[in-house]
Amino acid sequence: MSTSSSSSASVVAASTGSVEKVVIIGSGPAGHTAAIYAARANLSPLMFEGFMAAGVAAGGQLTTTTEVENFPGFPQGIPGPDLMDRMRAQSEHHGTRILTETVEHIDLSKRPFHIKSDSTEVFAETVIIATGATAKRLAIPGEETLWNHGISACAVCDGALPVFRNQVLIVVGGGDTAVEEATHLTKFGSQVILVHRRGELRASKAMQKRLFANDKVKPLWHHEVVEALGERSLVGVRVRDVQSGAAHEIACRGLFYAIGHVPNTAFLNGQLPVDETGYLITKPGTTQTAVAGVFACGDVQDKRWRQAITAAGTGCMAALEAEAFLAGH
Amino acid sequence: MSTSSSSSASVVAASTGSVEKVVIIGSGPAGHTAAIYAARANLSPLMFEGFMAAGVAAGGQLTTTTEVENFPGFPQGIPGPDLMDRMRAQSEHHGTRILTETVEHIDLSKRPFHIKSDSTEVFAETVIIATGATAKRLAIPGEETLWNHGISACAVCDGALPVFRNQVLIVVGGGDTAVEEATHLTKFGSQVILVHRRGELRASKAMQKRLFANDKVKPLWHHEVVEALGERSLVGVRVRDVQSGAAHEIACRGLFYAIGHVPNTAFLNGQLPVDETGYLITKPGTTQTAVAGVFACGDVQDKRWRQAITAAGTGCMAALEAEAFLAGH
Repeated sequence: MSTSSSSSASVVAASTGSVEKVVIIGSGPAGHTAAIYAARANLSPLMFEGFMAAGVAAGGQLTTTTEVENFPGFPQGIPGPDLMDRMRAQSEHHGTRILTETVEHIDLSKRPFHIKSDSTEVFAETVIIATGATAKRLAIPGEETLWNHGISACAVCDGALPVFRNQVLIVVGGGDTAVEEATHLTKFGSQVILVHRRGELRASKAMQKRLFANDKVKPLWHHEVVEALGERSLVGVRVRDVQSGAAHEIACRGLFYAIGHVPNTAFLNGQLPVDETGYLITKPGTTQTAVAGVFACGDVQDKRWRQAITAAGTGCMAALEAEAFLAGH
Repeated sequence: MSTSSSSSASVVAASTGSVEKVVIIGSGPAGHTAAIYAARANLSPLMFEGFMAAGVAAGGQLTTTTEVENFPGFPQGIPGPDLMDRMRAQSEHHGTRILTETVEHIDLSKRPFHIKSDSTEVFAETVIIATGATAKRLAIPGEETLWNHGISACAVCDGALPVFRNQVLIVVGGGDTAVEEATHLTKFGSQVILVHRRGELRASKAMQKRLFANDKVKPLWHHEVVEALGERSLVGVRVRDVQSGAAHEIACRGLFYAIGHVPNTAFLNGQLPVDETGYLITKPGTTQTAVAGVFACGDVQDKRWRQAITAAGTGCMAALEAEAFLAGH
């Protein structure tokens, strides 16, 4: 296998049938950090960065954000798409070959593993899965226009932004995450309204008790958000009583979704074990999946931290584990 | 507690006796990522960045490196000290108060925890320990001058640098790490000589077998490196036969230490459990130590990955765990 760097599809196409040392699927912080480490270890990784895979551009969830303030190394923050452009350039600089194609099929039942997009077919000794997760959305009117202009799926990432300070903020959801995010937002907003379809939360009682002990927090039971209001930025939401059907508007500047994520594992077709919420299971403290030589990193295996920097850390681990695996086989 | 940002010692001194929400000890990638996250969560963290703590400048091990090529986000690489300057600026920008003092004493036996440097004394509801680890050195003539000019303690970090390509490289050590680093270096060097004081390695037999199956690798048993040679960059080493005492020189361009690290835990005075090699023990998948409210991140609790990006990932986790802990108490 050549160790030369090229992003030309024809070069890769010419190697169809050959066996890659490392194939990386996904192109967020986890995938690119894995690529940087694997490339610097002379493993000439091949990355399928995806083409609007799971509805998101190559580069992953950060491409849907505006300013990233919490990735260490950027004192004044950096736009999410810029950060991912830089990571991509770094991967290529060190010799990663990148295909802008989405993996449609993978066969992990025999070695070498077999990977197919709609136009490329390769075999691989090791595979690093870094396909991420996609935040669930409500699919309500106004959502697409106002995404990142008042609507967010990550209170920890975005809550501290100036636009949300001393404003009315709305959180949608009923699980532990919704309570955590609402708690976090009480530090910034003037009021935090937790909108939930039911009359009680699924979150633990202790967490709920602490949340509602905060004067800033108000639950809005038996309601759902049916529309996001505003032209260029969010100015309010329309909510509907799910029992009576009556709707009313609430003026607010922030709308935070905490209704879960979908880890992007469909292409695996059940070949790797997942937990009860669909996340890939890795051996604790490692990125090893149930299949030797297949590693998972980033949000596809992480429902707890879900940060760019934690994803990047696990991408590094996956590459080092793939290198050790290759050295041992 | 004020949430204003200030690095003035007098301001902090004035708050002596008050209780900090989060105190961070250490200022490498783990400490600063924890600070960025804690500051953005409005916890107004106080960081003791150290003053030549464990012999290393504030900013940690990266301040002793030249170019960092593998931290994602910097396509052309970035000097280690610059990267740490940027992280420090980011911590301060979000409201971290930084003291250039080394923690001399800590009492974790009662709440709030009590922390003392030679000039400041504070109490804290939570503590994040990010004091890192220090690579062991041989303390031989030439070492200080040629550190980073041919001598390195991290083959994974530095092996791919152009200066080492197709050169004779020397690895010192006898454990698993030495074998891993030597294996890694075979991808870059023309020859890799493993120098060991004994006649056999402590590393696993399987790993040794694979290593020595590589034509590029040569062991040099019963020898130790006694001098690093070169003016501005390494051009060779003097080795000595530990049995006969006879010395000779070997021309080489790289000298990699793989003789272990010392995690910086002395100031803890045994108050937290450590493993058999002195690393702080954390609950797998978390940064929780044995004492509730005390979290450990970065190299002080990681003997496996030891990379800036993995350390940063755990720093993020520590801050999120401290935030959750504070919300629950």
